[in-house]
Amino acid sequence: MPTKLGPQEGPAALNPLIADLRSSAIRDLLALTQAPGVLSLAGGLPAADTFPADAVSAAAARLLAGDPAAALQYATTEGHPLLRAWIARYEAARSGREVDPDRVLVTSGSQQALDLLIRTLCAPGAVVAVEEPGYLGALQALRAAGASLRPFPVDAEGLDVEALAEALAGGLRPVALYTVATHQNPTGVTLSAERRRTLGELADRYGFVVIEDDPYAELWFEAPPPPPIRRATEWAVTLGSFSKTVAPGLRVGWAVLPDALHAPMVRLKQAADLQAGTFSQALVAALVTDEHWWSDHLVRLRSVYAQRAGALAGALAERFGDSLALNRPLGGMFLWGRFTDGADAAEVLRAALERHVAFVPGAEFFTGPPDRGAVRLSFATNPPAQLAEAAARLARAHEQATRRRPPAP
Amino acid sequence: MPTKLGPQEGPAALNPLIADLRSSAIRDLLALTQAPGVLSLAGGLPAADTFPADAVSAAAARLLAGDPAAALQYATTEGHPLLRAWIARYEAARSGREVDPDRVLVTSGSQQALDLLIRTLCAPGAVVAVEEPGYLGALQALRAAGASLRPFPVDAEGLDVEALAEALAGGLRPVALYTVATHQNPTGVTLSAERRRTLGELADRYGFVVIEDDPYAELWFEAPPPPPIRRATEWAVTLGSFSKTVAPGLRVGWAVLPDALHAPMVRLKQAADLQAGTFSQALVAALVTDEHWWSDHLVRLRSVYAQRAGALAGALAERFGDSLALNRPLGGMFLWGRFTDGADAAEVLRAALERHVAFVPGAEFFTGPPDRGAVRLSFATNPPAQLAEAAARLARAHEQATRRRPPAP
Repeated sequence: MPTKLGPQEGPAALNPLIADLRSSAIRDLLALTQAPGVLSLAGGLPAADTFPADAVSAAAARLLAGDPAAALQYATTEGHPLLRAWIARYEAARSGREVDPDRVLVTSGSQQALDLLIRTLCAPGAVVAVEEPGYLGALQALRAAGASLRPFPVDAEGLDVEALAEALAGGLRPVALYTVATHQNPTGVTLSAERRRTLGELADRYGFVVIEDDPYAELWFEAPPPPPIRRATEWAVTLGSFSKTVAPGLRVGWAVLPDALHAPMVRLKQAADLQAGTFSQALVAALVTDEHWWSDHLVRLRSVYAQRAGALAGALAERFGDSLALNRPLGGMFLWGRFTDGADAAEVLRAALERHVAFVPGAEFFTGPPDRGAVRLSFATNPPAQLAEAAARLARAHEQATRRRPPAP
Repeated sequence: MPTKLGPQEGPAALNPLIADLRSSAIRDLLALTQAPGVLSLAGGLPAADTFPADAVSAAAARLLAGDPAAALQYATTEGHPLLRAWIARYEAARSGREVDPDRVLVTSGSQQALDLLIRTLCAPGAVVAVEEPGYLGALQALRAAGASLRPFPVDAEGLDVEALAEALAGGLRPVALYTVATHQNPTGVTLSAERRRTLGELADRYGFVVIEDDPYAELWFEAPPPPPIRRATEWAVTLGSFSKTVAPGLRVGWAVLPDALHAPMVRLKQAADLQAGTFSQALVAALVTDEHWWSDHLVRLRSVYAQRAGALAGALAERFGDSLALNRPLGGMFLWGRFTDGADAAEVLRAALERHVAFVPGAEFFTGPPDRGAVRLSFATNPPAQLAEAAARLARAHEQATRRRPPAP
């Protein structure tokens, strides 16, 4: 049913794919968590106290005093040449496969790379395999393109590649598979090296594109994750981002693309917004090409996130004991938990908001029947003392919600 | 015919709408004009010597020393609150109609506002009326959405609204009309106030959305243009940009939308790239809310562009006499000319490139049968002395091309 725009006689109506896009429930929840005094484990915001404000400020002054046109004028759609070259070297080093800078496209955050790639691959009705639970921003972009979603479960080793293989053997022919293989949003799990290889073989055999959305790659705690899936197949696209390593407000991300996809993506990017910000790209290039600064900065980032993950996991274990089963991640920004006593996460959230603490019920991340006992808890934004207080409030909310709940039959 | 991605057995193929997007011929031409020594009248770049590098630098230092999170963290999809409020006041003042800041969406340049709006309005096959000749970036975005284009001619008073009215009376039912009503790209013409009113009446009567892309509004020479079409109908969207008044490399533009379009556009923007750059928006907000600086800056900008337009038009008149009919604009960045002696602009361009001067043949801006004698000449990027030299080289190229040409039968 087309949504009529107004009382006119004419045909003006919205594109039904866009009219049907739902506002994210998380987005609505985040509005509630803006209130002063609320400790929020709900958002996906990186730690603002790690933002390199001084380094950005120094780079901005230098760039603008040097050649203002190089910082402020229109620039090529493909991206800042120095930054593309740096990304190519970086992606080559971590994948062990050569990357031609001509296959890099710089985008307005990795969300844009994802949206452009989906538009390039998907005519309405195209089948795309996705993770369940999975990243909501990808589902939104897929729905906007009219893709038909086919969910596959995620377990402790990441996407259930065996289930995917069975569906493919049974005749499923997706144009693409979308995965956050490293420190997944929302579960925090990382796809094992063996499953990455299997996934690469499946992509080659059945001819689909693996879209590996990889914004958390550098936020590891003890050891780097396995190489990106691009190591295992020519048909994997890596989407990267400086949002979690430099700052999200600059909106700089990238895609490493197979040759056949690069040119159409560039043309679409040109129609979509001409180019990523010249100034933002120049700032990021100035920071990351300062090798010592960059490696020191990453060491500090990893230590902050590891400490916070440990603090929240420890406090939750202490407060909840066995009633909350926690998936302890190897990196990233999220803990994923399950109430083992039958508590409903939405009911716990209601009690939690009364106590000025927020999280996201895991059910939000499902396209099919959800796990009502699951929760996503972000440890990224708050320092350890506040995470401990949040865990204490959550435990009281959980207790209150389970008291309210009628006894199981 | 779907474009196969590779040698696989599977179904992987590109979305045919995207696979069929052509690279802009102008884009290819611009690559040629990068060579040292080439005087280019081809690009659509604003004057880099007007970029407020010092003001941006001071604002950057202040913002980053203050609250770095406010400059570098994720922010709302709708846009920076102070900037939205400023845009609402600005748009209200120039249209004489109240604008609620809640109807403003800040975008990554106005090109993104255009792309998002087209995606929101157009399911594949939707009919959209466009100007002929018209802005190529709009045609690209319309083609990517699968819109069916219906061109209408442009004359000295802008879009031929009478021709549109006849087509509507004859049964045409477009979902939208796209127009650069003020200092049009490529012709430089401005839609008269009377035609704007007529267009508003047609939109109300036939129920289509008027997309008024308005990046050149502030670049007037002697008097401000008529109010935006939004003054005449609720169903006009104004797309604005800071690319020509502050700097394009910051990628900050906006849309003023009817209520029924705002919410779906925000949801689509969230899927497309989450938000425009936090830092860029904060920088622009800092500059434009400094009222004295802003009005002085605009006065200076207008004087630079007016001077350059006059210099190029004067030099061309002197060199070409009657053999080039020039459309002298009231503002903006472009002159539009026609060789009156039958010269073919593509042939003149070939000779011009040999003489290290470039422009865009007008034929590039047509969707249907082009005017082969037309040329678009940008006066924005070069100072007067270089514009005079460019005109001299162009005249020699024109002479050479017409000498080569076989005599008319």
